[in-house]
Amino acid sequence: MLEHRIDQRFTVTYSYPVCFTRKAFSPDNPVLAELMRMPEQGMKARALVLIDSGVAASRDGYIESIERYAYAHRHLFELAHPPVAMRGGEAAKHGLREVEPIYDLVREMRICRHSYVVAIGGGAVLDAAGYAAATAHRGVRLIRMPSTVLAQNDAGIGVKNGVNWYGRKNFVGAFASPFAVVNDFDLLASAPSHVRRAGIAEAIKVALIRDEAFFAQLHQQRFELADLAPHAIEPMIVRCAQLHLAQIRNGGDPFERGSARPLDFGHWAAHKLEELSQHRLLHGEAVAIGIALDTLYSQHIGLIDGAAVDLVLDTMRDIGFVLDDPVLDELDLERALADFREHLGGLLCITLLKGIGEGIEVDRIDMAAMRECVARLRVMRQAVQAVRAASEVST
Amino acid sequence: MLEHRIDQRFTVTYSYPVCFTRKAFSPDNPVLAELMRMPEQGMKARALVLIDSGVAASRDGYIESIERYAYAHRHLFELAHPPVAMRGGEAAKHGLREVEPIYDLVREMRICRHSYVVAIGGGAVLDAAGYAAATAHRGVRLIRMPSTVLAQNDAGIGVKNGVNWYGRKNFVGAFASPFAVVNDFDLLASAPSHVRRAGIAEAIKVALIRDEAFFAQLHQQRFELADLAPHAIEPMIVRCAQLHLAQIRNGGDPFERGSARPLDFGHWAAHKLEELSQHRLLHGEAVAIGIALDTLYSQHIGLIDGAAVDLVLDTMRDIGFVLDDPVLDELDLERALADFREHLGGLLCITLLKGIGEGIEVDRIDMAAMRECVARLRVMRQAVQAVRAASEVST
Repeated sequence: MLEHRIDQRFTVTYSYPVCFTRKAFSPDNPVLAELMRMPEQGMKARALVLIDSGVAASRDGYIESIERYAYAHRHLFELAHPPVAMRGGEAAKHGLREVEPIYDLVREMRICRHSYVVAIGGGAVLDAAGYAAATAHRGVRLIRMPSTVLAQNDAGIGVKNGVNWYGRKNFVGAFASPFAVVNDFDLLASAPSHVRRAGIAEAIKVALIRDEAFFAQLHQQRFELADLAPHAIEPMIVRCAQLHLAQIRNGGDPFERGSARPLDFGHWAAHKLEELSQHRLLHGEAVAIGIALDTLYSQHIGLIDGAAVDLVLDTMRDIGFVLDDPVLDELDLERALADFREHLGGLLCITLLKGIGEGIEVDRIDMAAMRECVARLRVMRQAVQAVRAASEVST
Repeated sequence: MLEHRIDQRFTVTYSYPVCFTRKAFSPDNPVLAELMRMPEQGMKARALVLIDSGVAASRDGYIESIERYAYAHRHLFELAHPPVAMRGGEAAKHGLREVEPIYDLVREMRICRHSYVVAIGGGAVLDAAGYAAATAHRGVRLIRMPSTVLAQNDAGIGVKNGVNWYGRKNFVGAFASPFAVVNDFDLLASAPSHVRRAGIAEAIKVALIRDEAFFAQLHQQRFELADLAPHAIEPMIVRCAQLHLAQIRNGGDPFERGSARPLDFGHWAAHKLEELSQHRLLHGEAVAIGIALDTLYSQHIGLIDGAAVDLVLDTMRDIGFVLDDPVLDELDLERALADFREHLGGLLCITLLKGIGEGIEVDRIDMAAMRECVARLRVMRQAVQAVRAASEVST
């Protein structure tokens, strides 16, 4: 019945730099402007700048500093429109509500595929603005300037973007690599402390599955990380970004067509906990709980011992993560695993730990055992507190 | 000011078969079902079938035949939902109006990245359904079953999808390769004759810029093509598809990041003529006019001679294309070229002819000369008719 068949096959190379800098909009900082330099002599790039309202609100004169920067580098690029503020946090990802006005701006300001959308903000703003940039004209150039720890070490440096759809996280999105990423360490101060701290969860995650030495460093510096000391936070961001980028580059499946999702360690529960808490839990806070759960489960099925579990959970607690959030009581395990499998597609594939720094993938979860792990997590802090209280009494 | 830089780089391979068959939903035709065979023993694929309302209306019992087909091949796949009809023609691409209900279906029917959206219809339905498939879950598998000549030889076999946005053609979209394409020759009969004929324009286009022998064949068979004779139409579709796929594969820029658009010969005017006629002109009809215009312009600047122009224009007229549509009088050349450049991005790049079967790219258009070509096209038919009338009188 097949009369003729043509097998189409081609490859596409994706490349982008991730630059770490400070005071990106100081007029004498060339990093951002040079990224936009056009190869054609005398041609000037055009940029549409979108800013997280949270970032704009936290810094006096920030929008003016961008305008001054554009003026200082006017031989390289021009602003197509004054910088536009976008709702920050998960509100940015409420369906296509924040995406459609960006299409209108791209259309009205005549932004083309060789122009730039520069998105400044936390992961949610970058996800929504990135989705708009990936789909307007089938893709205009996107420069991400992540403002949070989580966005600088994970969400803002990779190839994913998207928005939520009727509460389903990242349901509508695309894989698209940015044109460039500019991580400005000085932007981190725009976020409140608990938001900055939450981003450390992704570093713990990638250290646990990939890099024992990095985990040892995080453990050693846990109190400095808890204090958000720049000398601990900044190298943590660079190392975490390196590991995430290496996984995308070398993992063999950057656009996730197969079933494996090694970087999603702890994420099946995390996604659902975020939804159930109606985003009271930040993504990183939910990931920490998810890591705790899958670490306990790894012990339960004999992959790691109790000492490893204590090391992981104590490190996270000392950094400031709360692992026994009451929303755990509402977690429907079957549903959470089914939704995770369905969003990723293919067979269920869950990453567990077979050691500190070593992930392993499994294709089934014993629900009764996982339920026990949830229960252990819920009572564990009470137990920890009781032990501490007892030891304080006895001293 | 640059503290650290990581250069990310990876490649992604895209591959998909384009299969030519007949009676794709005859229960004994294995082509479609085999494409969905899961590698895992005993696993069954799930499919959401979307059909152009025009196709469904033109064929009695078509939806039932799909259901019977699914039943006959139930060991390989199942329908996640009864086949769903979508508005056909440009109405399918009216912003996100037809896309959002597909997101809802994907969500409600729990379609995952390893499930299939099977889209059956003309180019517009494939573009809109393909965009929904490319963005739901960041991409579920798409099998296109093009129903028109244009979709089988061009629009349905490539890597583009998208919808219009406030009248701007394909403004919102993505580059995404399909999982597979099934060209069912028996589907062609669902479209009215003028729709089928319009699709021949893309074959003329690609022949003119790439393949002199193919153009000679089209010229020789022009009256059979005008009659839509299957023995002329079917090989034309296969050859045109081969040439389009080869350009995507070998052209070096499948996702159009540079400025060159060799396959868009004749398209800068065509896109605007479609818009100006409010889609009274079909895409192929507008492309024929655009080809005529750029062929005349190629002569005007000395690239080809008058005999070549006559050959091209006569071939198109004999196939049934009307080249002097009154909407040409409304064409704002500057605006049309500016919008074309802007949608594609980068520098202006227009393909012209330097011979039959050989395209050449230029980066500027002389507006006065192009205006003369428009004027020539408008009066040309009157002249042709006058000559014919005179010769009839004299014989």
